[in-house]
Amino acid sequence: MEVFAVPDLPEFRPGDSIPDLIEARADLRPDDVVCVASTVVSKVEDRVADLSDFPAGPRAREIAARLERATGDEKDPRFAQAVLEESTDLLMEAPFLLTETRFGHVTVNAGIDRSNVPGGDLLLLPRRPSESAARIETGLTADRVIVTDTCGRPFRHGQRGVAIGWAGTPAARDWRGETDREGRELGVTVQAVVDELAAAANLVAGEGAGGTPVVVVRDFDFGDHDGSDALFRDVEGDFVRQALRGWSYE
Amino acid sequence: MEVFAVPDLPEFRPGDSIPDLIEARADLRPDDVVCVASTVVSKVEDRVADLSDFPAGPRAREIAARLERATGDEKDPRFAQAVLEESTDLLMEAPFLLTETRFGHVTVNAGIDRSNVPGGDLLLLPRRPSESAARIETGLTADRVIVTDTCGRPFRHGQRGVAIGWAGTPAARDWRGETDREGRELGVTVQAVVDELAAAANLVAGEGAGGTPVVVVRDFDFGDHDGSDALFRDVEGDFVRQALRGWSYE
Repeated sequence: MEVFAVPDLPEFRPGDSIPDLIEARADLRPDDVVCVASTVVSKVEDRVADLSDFPAGPRAREIAARLERATGDEKDPRFAQAVLEESTDLLMEAPFLLTETRFGHVTVNAGIDRSNVPGGDLLLLPRRPSESAARIETGLTADRVIVTDTCGRPFRHGQRGVAIGWAGTPAARDWRGETDREGRELGVTVQAVVDELAAAANLVAGEGAGGTPVVVVRDFDFGDHDGSDALFRDVEGDFVRQALRGWSYE
Repeated sequence: MEVFAVPDLPEFRPGDSIPDLIEARADLRPDDVVCVASTVVSKVEDRVADLSDFPAGPRAREIAARLERATGDEKDPRFAQAVLEESTDLLMEAPFLLTETRFGHVTVNAGIDRSNVPGGDLLLLPRRPSESAARIETGLTADRVIVTDTCGRPFRHGQRGVAIGWAGTPAARDWRGETDREGRELGVTVQAVVDELAAAANLVAGEGAGGTPVVVVRDFDFGDHDGSDALFRDVEGDFVRQALRGWSYE
């Protein structure tokens, strides 16, 4: 398996064709997996916004005040308002705002980016990243597309690449029913391959000014397995989320 | 970056030299990252055990009974005893046993494997995986070694590869102080590269009888960054763990 960045991509602008810009710089093959950073998708889909677009309501002001108390830093209630509008559930309000986005991804600040935003204060995540992935895939020689993000996680320090949208591939592959060398059924049954592909891509993507937002994974073999598309857990099956419901920082 | 499995490895046995078995089958280079599945390390370090090695104490019987009530499945209190002896903290007792291992990794059942165990009932994780990684590295042409595991996570379905031990590389690379194209400081600062390398390796490793437990990542460039080795969070900085402390399944 090979993992390489697509070189010399320009700054992406609203309305740009992501497939055209990639195809002009990479000789893709049908079974390539093309991993596109969500920032690029957001810029093309014009998900740039200003803080002034989000006049803060009482809930946002309450959250910002609570975050100020918890962190000692000044917090803009309009930013809290933007996070609320992008979210369907708040998992934690302090010492940071952990929410579920409208498409099911759990991340800090609904994944809203305040760096690398030309022409605005905020870069919101794509509205429906799997639909974005499908649109990009239509214009590419490659049959598999993943929209990636980076985020932190419980239990382990540091951020890692994750998938927030995908097309042309199931999210996970299923080893159920397969056996080990001793003939016992496997304990590990569902492998979140799109997250692993996003993590691999993130190793060569880099960050910031020198970052390369599109990475190709070549010769990844999904193999002869069942697939599934459930990547985001429901509250019902996620005991950590249930625990967070009853918890408060202060 | 290239990711490939080391072919034709035999079943590993206690006392085998992992470096020798790898070097005989792969033409390694100094800057390769060699990812070794923890199962292999455990077999070589003779971490195979029998349930009868763990006579259940009162706490283990209590936990097993609680798991039986929660799941409706029969649970062996000796298995709960084995998990307790491998753990320093219990994060969840039901509906499954989530613990912190003695070396800081949070995982279900302290990572004890009940499949793929020749000559025993249980395969325990290596005692100190980073020391194992350092020992393996000493015998290899490659300068970087990661001991990998697979485990699930909150918020997202499915398992993915993670690092549980590493040598010759920091666990994470630090982007602090670097700026984006607009000159703003980067939001994402610490990238858990060893986890991303383990995830990439897991894409080609596979599971079960056809699985390949050693994978090489070639031409991964860590770059000119500070590194850090803190991969496992302390309870103090992990709000999800704090929330789990006050939570109970029943």
